[in-house]
Amino acid sequence: MSFYKGEEIFLGKQLLGELYACNHEALNSPEAMKEIMEKAALAANATIVQSVFHHFSPYGVSGVVVIQESHFAVHTWPEHQFVSVDFYTCGETAFPEKAMQYLIEVLSAAEYDLKEVKRGELNKIEKFITEE
Amino acid sequence: MSFYKGEEIFLGKQLLGELYACNHEALNSPEAMKEIMEKAALAANATIVQSVFHHFSPYGVSGVVVIQESHFAVHTWPEHQFVSVDFYTCGETAFPEKAMQYLIEVLSAAEYDLKEVKRGELNKIEKFITEE
Repeated sequence: MSFYKGEEIFLGKQLLGELYACNHEALNSPEAMKEIMEKAALAANATIVQSVFHHFSPYGVSGVVVIQESHFAVHTWPEHQFVSVDFYTCGETAFPEKAMQYLIEVLSAAEYDLKEVKRGELNKIEKFITEE
Repeated sequence: MSFYKGEEIFLGKQLLGELYACNHEALNSPEAMKEIMEKAALAANATIVQSVFHHFSPYGVSGVVVIQESHFAVHTWPEHQFVSVDFYTCGETAFPEKAMQYLIEVLSAAEYDLKEVKRGELNKIEKFITEE
């Protein structure tokens, strides 16, 4: 349940995405965004545990898919054609890049910024473990 | 529903925390972590919409508090005394720093790494908006 990057071992990986010019009606529909994010989870080979999606007044959706491997979260601003998304996975069996690729394609994002953050550096974690 | 940093305006702010040496029994209890994360949301002056927390086999909890202002997510590894947390807020009324401070104190994290990520740069969003 960990992966290597150079000499370091991390428990998880998080992809942050800012998707621009998403001129797509799903951005104002919690049902549609839930379906898209669950399909993104499947594209990433993740196992869905539970999804919660809400509509916000007057515009926008917030939603999270809790997966066996961590979580996927999304927030939409239809009035800005903007989507902010996090794909956080642990272990070696799920691939957040594939979820991101799926989302960008489905929402026809014309532009996007991606950032990758490694989570849980195992050497550092072990250095600080205290006695029970 | 936005805030300034220098000349730039962002829709949201995300605090990523890696908390080490959390020798605390709550790390293996979804009920306890839910209570702690909801109190963190209140400490941040956020409005709770819905919480989902799950226990993972053999150890660990994953949970998300969807808030009016975006979401708070947490993953725990009790066997590593490690907690990975995201506090994502939008607008000017919620303060993720206060949630982080609360969590660090309650879990008695001996060490932590924090990272702040600005989300949704409004000038960039508007540059890419397409015609309906």
